[in-house]
Amino acid sequence: MNFFDIIEKKKHKKNLTAEESDFIFGEFAAGNIKDSQMSAFLMAQMFCPTDKEEAFNFTMSMVKTGETIDLSALSGISADKHSTGGIGDKTTLILAPVIAALGIKFPKLSGRGLGYTGGTIDKLESIPGFKTDLTSDEVLRITEECGCCIAAQTDKLVPADKLTYALRSEIGAVDNQTLIAASVMSKKIAVGADIIVLDIKYGSGAFMKTRTEAVELGALMRHIGEKAGKKVSCILSDMNVPLGINAGNALEVFEAVQFLKGGDIPDLYSTVSKLAVEILMHFGCNAKQGLAKFDDVIKSGAALQKFRQMVKLQGGDLSRFEEKYYTDDFSGCAAILSPHKGKIIAMDTEKIGEMLIWLKAGRSTKTDSLNYDSGICFHRKTGDDLLPGDEIGMVYYPKGYNEDEVIERFLSCFNIN
Amino acid sequence: MNFFDIIEKKKHKKNLTAEESDFIFGEFAAGNIKDSQMSAFLMAQMFCPTDKEEAFNFTMSMVKTGETIDLSALSGISADKHSTGGIGDKTTLILAPVIAALGIKFPKLSGRGLGYTGGTIDKLESIPGFKTDLTSDEVLRITEECGCCIAAQTDKLVPADKLTYALRSEIGAVDNQTLIAASVMSKKIAVGADIIVLDIKYGSGAFMKTRTEAVELGALMRHIGEKAGKKVSCILSDMNVPLGINAGNALEVFEAVQFLKGGDIPDLYSTVSKLAVEILMHFGCNAKQGLAKFDDVIKSGAALQKFRQMVKLQGGDLSRFEEKYYTDDFSGCAAILSPHKGKIIAMDTEKIGEMLIWLKAGRSTKTDSLNYDSGICFHRKTGDDLLPGDEIGMVYYPKGYNEDEVIERFLSCFNIN
Repeated sequence: MNFFDIIEKKKHKKNLTAEESDFIFGEFAAGNIKDSQMSAFLMAQMFCPTDKEEAFNFTMSMVKTGETIDLSALSGISADKHSTGGIGDKTTLILAPVIAALGIKFPKLSGRGLGYTGGTIDKLESIPGFKTDLTSDEVLRITEECGCCIAAQTDKLVPADKLTYALRSEIGAVDNQTLIAASVMSKKIAVGADIIVLDIKYGSGAFMKTRTEAVELGALMRHIGEKAGKKVSCILSDMNVPLGINAGNALEVFEAVQFLKGGDIPDLYSTVSKLAVEILMHFGCNAKQGLAKFDDVIKSGAALQKFRQMVKLQGGDLSRFEEKYYTDDFSGCAAILSPHKGKIIAMDTEKIGEMLIWLKAGRSTKTDSLNYDSGICFHRKTGDDLLPGDEIGMVYYPKGYNEDEVIERFLSCFNIN
Repeated sequence: MNFFDIIEKKKHKKNLTAEESDFIFGEFAAGNIKDSQMSAFLMAQMFCPTDKEEAFNFTMSMVKTGETIDLSALSGISADKHSTGGIGDKTTLILAPVIAALGIKFPKLSGRGLGYTGGTIDKLESIPGFKTDLTSDEVLRITEECGCCIAAQTDKLVPADKLTYALRSEIGAVDNQTLIAASVMSKKIAVGADIIVLDIKYGSGAFMKTRTEAVELGALMRHIGEKAGKKVSCILSDMNVPLGINAGNALEVFEAVQFLKGGDIPDLYSTVSKLAVEILMHFGCNAKQGLAKFDDVIKSGAALQKFRQMVKLQGGDLSRFEEKYYTDDFSGCAAILSPHKGKIIAMDTEKIGEMLIWLKAGRSTKTDSLNYDSGICFHRKTGDDLLPGDEIGMVYYPKGYNEDEVIERFLSCFNIN
C-alpha cells in the first residue's frame, strides 16, 4: 500500500477501506507520511461527500495510534460527554457531579481551549490548586472514590488526532463532518465510557452554522459510537446566544457553583438537564422521571457535594467561588448600560468570542496565556426589552485596558433596535 | 493578504485574483509558504473548474519569480515549440534546424526527461561532446550564428514552476489543466519567443488521455499565450502509437538525422511538417505553401546542414549517427518476431514507456542514470498485418538483461489478433 495511491483514490472521491484508513493514520502518527502529502489527502477529503463507514474507519484507525484507558476497574456503568463548544458552555462542570450524584461514573478527559469556545480544563485551572494533569490511575482512583473526575487529555491519547488536527487548522481543513466526527469520537472511544452523550451546538458562535449541519453531524457521531459498541445520545443546542450568564474561566466556575446551589439560570438548566436525562434514559427512565432525578440531586445538594469532593480530591480550593464573585488581578469592571430604549434583536456570538480572546479569557494561539478572572456577564439577552440605562452586562477586563473601548466592543456585539 | 484565506477561497471553488496569484507563487518561491499549505492549495485546485483568466494569472505570477531571456538581441522573428511529451517524440531535433533553415530563429530551452516521455536534452546528450548547459549569452550567440540552439533550462527560469511541479508530483496533483497550462506557458513566456507552437499529445502514452482533453488544454494554452502578446498555434497528435520508428536517446538522434537526410517516416513527417507549417502560417503562408517550403529545406539538405552546424557549435561530434546505427555499450540487441499470423490491434504506449524506463532509456526518478544506447525500434505498428516470423521490432538492451524477458516485455506491449 502506498500513500500516493490513496491520495489518488480520494482525489476521485472514492471511499477508503479500513486497511487504507489504518495505513493513513498509523503511518502519519509514526512520522512516515510527509505533512505535504497528508495535507493533500485532507484537502481532497473536504471535497468528498460524507460516508459513515469511512468516518467509522477513520475513527478506529486514529484510536489505534495511541493508548486507551481501561475503565473496567471502575464499579458500575460509566458515562462521558462531549460538546462541540460554545460561548459560556460550563455544562461539564455541572453534569459531572450531577451524574456522579446519580450513581453513574463520570471520568472525563478534556482539552484546553483554542479559539473562543473555551476549554473545561482552563475553567477548572482558575480554581486555586486544582490539578488537571493526572495519570490514568489517578483518574480511575478519583472517579472510583467520588464518582467523577475531570482531567487534561494527555498526548498519548489518540496522537494521530492531535497531529491531524494541527495540520487541519493550518490548511483550513477543519469544517468537514467526517474529520470532525472522527476526531471527537476517537477520543471518546479511547477513553472507553459505556455511554456517550453529545451536545452539538449550532449558530453563529459554533462550528456548525446551521441546525441541519448539526443534525447530520450528530447522526454521524452516533453511528460511529454505536458501531464501536457504545450507547450514544445526542442533543442539539442553539449557540446564537451565549449559554447561561457568564463567559470567562473563573466566572463560569462561579456560575456552575451557583447553579449547583440551586441558582435559577433557565437556559443552562435546560441544556444540562437534557444531557443528564439522555444519560438516565439508558437506565430505563423516561424523560419525566429523568428530570425528577436531576432536580432531586440539585435540590438535595448532593451534586454540589460531589463537586466540592472532586475539587478537593484534585487539590483545589473552592473558597473564592462560594459567595460573591471577586477577582484577584483584574484592573477593571465595567457595567454596560443600555444607551437607549429598545429590544435586543440579536447577539453576535462569534464577535463575543473574539472579545473574550481580546480579554485573554480565551486563546487565539496555543501558547497564549490566559487571564482567568476576565470575562463577561450577560444580564440581558436576545429578545429582552431595554430602557435607557438598563444594565445589559458587566465586563471584567485586564489591567491597562481602556474602559471606553471595553464598552464599545461589548455594545458592538449586540443588535439593539 | 494571507495564504490561509486564499486556501479558504479555493476550497469554496472561487477563482483567485491576479494579486492573490502573485502572492501564492511569489511567496512560495521565496520559501515563505509551507509545503503543507501549498499542497492543500494545489489539491483544492484539482477540484475547481478551469478558469482561463485564473490560468493566465498563475502563468504570469510564475514567470515573475525568475529570470526572463531578452531575445531582442536576435535579428528577425523567433519561434519556440512545446510538446506535452510522448514516446519516440524527436520532433524538436528536426524542427529546430528546419525552422532555422527557413530563416526563423529557434532558441529552445528544454528539460531533462522524467517518466517515460523522454527529454530532448537527454537525447542530445547522447551525442558525444554535446554541451547543453549554456548561458543565456551562449544560447543567443549560437542562435544568431546558425539560427537554432537547444540548451537545458536553468533553475533560474521560473523557479516557482520547478518547486510547484515537484510538490505536484509528490501529492498526485499533476493532471489538472490549469496547473499544466500555467507550468508550460510560464516557461515559454519566460524564454520570450514571438511565435509559440504547441504539440499536444493524447492517448494512452500521453498526459491527456482523450482528444477532448487535449483540445481543451490547447485552447487554454493559446489563450494564455495570446494574452501575453505571443502568436500561438497548436496541433494535436495521437499518442496511442509511438512517433516514428525509434524510441531511446541515441536511437532518436539517429532517426532524426535519417529524417533530415530525406528518410521516409510517414507519421514523423506528418507531425513535424504540421508544426513547421503552423509557424510559417504566421508569415503569410497557406498550408500548401508552408509544406512546400518544409519539403524544400529537407530535400536541399539545408535543414541537415543547420543541424550539423548546431551540433558542432554546441561541441558535439555527430559522426556515429551519420551511417548505420551502432552502440558502444549495449550488451544485447534482440529482433522480435511475430509469434503467429495476425494483425496488430493496439499498442500499449504506457507499457512501452515503462519498458523504456526498465531499459534505462528513461528515468523514473530524477537521479536515475540513463543508458543512452538502449531503446526500441518499431518496425510494425497498429493496423499492420503479420505473418509468423515477421520482425515486429528490435530492442537494444543493457548488459546483464535476459533476452527472453526483453522479448516477453516487448510482446506484452502489443495486442496481436
